[in-house]
Amino acid sequence: MTGAQRPRVAFQGERGAFSEDAVHQLFPKDAELLPCINFEELFNAISDERADYAVAPLENTLAGSVQRCYDLLLESRLHIVGEAIVAIKHCLIGCEGASLQTIRTVASHPVALAQCQHFFAEHPLIRPVAADDTAGSVRLVMETADPMLAAIASANAAQIYGGKILARDLEDHAENYTRFALLAREPVASADADKLTLVLSLANMPGALHQALAPLAQAGIDLIKTETRPIAGRPWEYRFCLDLAAFAADSAVSSALQEIQQCSAVQQFRVLGSYKSARNLSFKMAKEFATK
Amino acid sequence: MTGAQRPRVAFQGERGAFSEDAVHQLFPKDAELLPCINFEELFNAISDERADYAVAPLENTLAGSVQRCYDLLLESRLHIVGEAIVAIKHCLIGCEGASLQTIRTVASHPVALAQCQHFFAEHPLIRPVAADDTAGSVRLVMETADPMLAAIASANAAQIYGGKILARDLEDHAENYTRFALLAREPVASADADKLTLVLSLANMPGALHQALAPLAQAGIDLIKTETRPIAGRPWEYRFCLDLAAFAADSAVSSALQEIQQCSAVQQFRVLGSYKSARNLSFKMAKEFATK
Repeated sequence: MTGAQRPRVAFQGERGAFSEDAVHQLFPKDAELLPCINFEELFNAISDERADYAVAPLENTLAGSVQRCYDLLLESRLHIVGEAIVAIKHCLIGCEGASLQTIRTVASHPVALAQCQHFFAEHPLIRPVAADDTAGSVRLVMETADPMLAAIASANAAQIYGGKILARDLEDHAENYTRFALLAREPVASADADKLTLVLSLANMPGALHQALAPLAQAGIDLIKTETRPIAGRPWEYRFCLDLAAFAADSAVSSALQEIQQCSAVQQFRVLGSYKSARNLSFKMAKEFATK
Repeated sequence: MTGAQRPRVAFQGERGAFSEDAVHQLFPKDAELLPCINFEELFNAISDERADYAVAPLENTLAGSVQRCYDLLLESRLHIVGEAIVAIKHCLIGCEGASLQTIRTVASHPVALAQCQHFFAEHPLIRPVAADDTAGSVRLVMETADPMLAAIASANAAQIYGGKILARDLEDHAENYTRFALLAREPVASADADKLTLVLSLANMPGALHQALAPLAQAGIDLIKTETRPIAGRPWEYRFCLDLAAFAADSAVSSALQEIQQCSAVQQFRVLGSYKSARNLSFKMAKEFATK
């Protein structure tokens, strides 16, 4: 990124994808959007400098970790410099003239369709059809202009393609969030970074993980999430990706990290990034706040 | 299962799926095969007693954990009573008259296609096409009898549908294995059970996982794998599924399990099963053995 130019931010999906909501959250002022067809393309865009940042989904509160993104992140030399949490609110989107009575087919990404099973159970005449993309399905619906066809996608996608929102909150579980990592080629030192992600590989011996976690437990550092990914070519061996609630500036944190690195059980050790955590308010917590 | 009847064993996929290889490994004498269209159907088949056993893939050494199977297992009341490891060897399968020169399109499951990228890079005239199933693609190829069409699937699928194997070992990585769990409605006590799987949920406090692992470390029990799954409705909270190298009959193991259960950080605790581990020989290890 040079001077006052807008940052170029890559995300996976078409315009209007939920990933785009994460970009707007992380760059509220302005950003040059670079939609990428798949996760490989997303990581290529930043590695070969067509983008300054990439926004990659790492986990959804219902579906779990986005395994392919974890693998691409661990294979890359990129750094996590921020994160965003997007509430996944599925809308039913049709063209002019469409209504719940006219539509017979609803296209969307398979994960989105799977998250709206109650809707399909309540509307047995409407058939779900898998598509590559949530937002891309809206584009398709608007291109065909067929009142029998609708899509499931974000409200933002309806706006971008001029679709009509026929129903909101189609998701079975209200507590549906996706967490995105903001990736950059260089780390960013930030005084308000309160979260840290590291990746470890461990010797194949009893107590290895327990030993590696000891410095964190002793320093009272909260382990927010652990993710285990297989190491290609070494069957039944794994890398551990650990998210910690930890201020990088805190000397107790740097001591604990040093101790982990010196553990006999720890082989690979890398800090993937230190960054400000996204506002972690769940639906329930937000309601509790609102009623106080 | 009653008397001398053959056990009814459910697996996901069509006849000839890699899961069927796991069934043959676990029931070398004979079994009544019950193919299931998806993972939900697989778990339903055993829960509502249409099958005596279900064979469920839990992890692949390249793609990682099969998240949907983990979730269905954790939601169920089923028990792990055995496991199998299947080497994933992808074959290119065509009909009579087909050859590497005639084929232009290759259908298979997206994961199988993704594991054969070198083949497609070396054969730019051949286009991969996603299908529901590896074995089902072979059935389709044989039905259409089009020498321009081929499938990627197991050698067993070629045999079942009468397909011709045009090329073998299409996979990019030789070290490609899938581990399957054998599931039953009741646990099976077995003297040679050397592996144990448990599921935990932990209090949201620093050091919780470290505390829960301490009894294992102290008893010298090897942690083979950890898997983290989100808890639906409780954003950013997780269940841990732990595979241990542990003889259930060993008193040190039962003491360690009891200690874990009594940890203040441990909320949910359940033993999913105690069973004989599958022969864990990797390709490399097998070669080393062979040259000794």
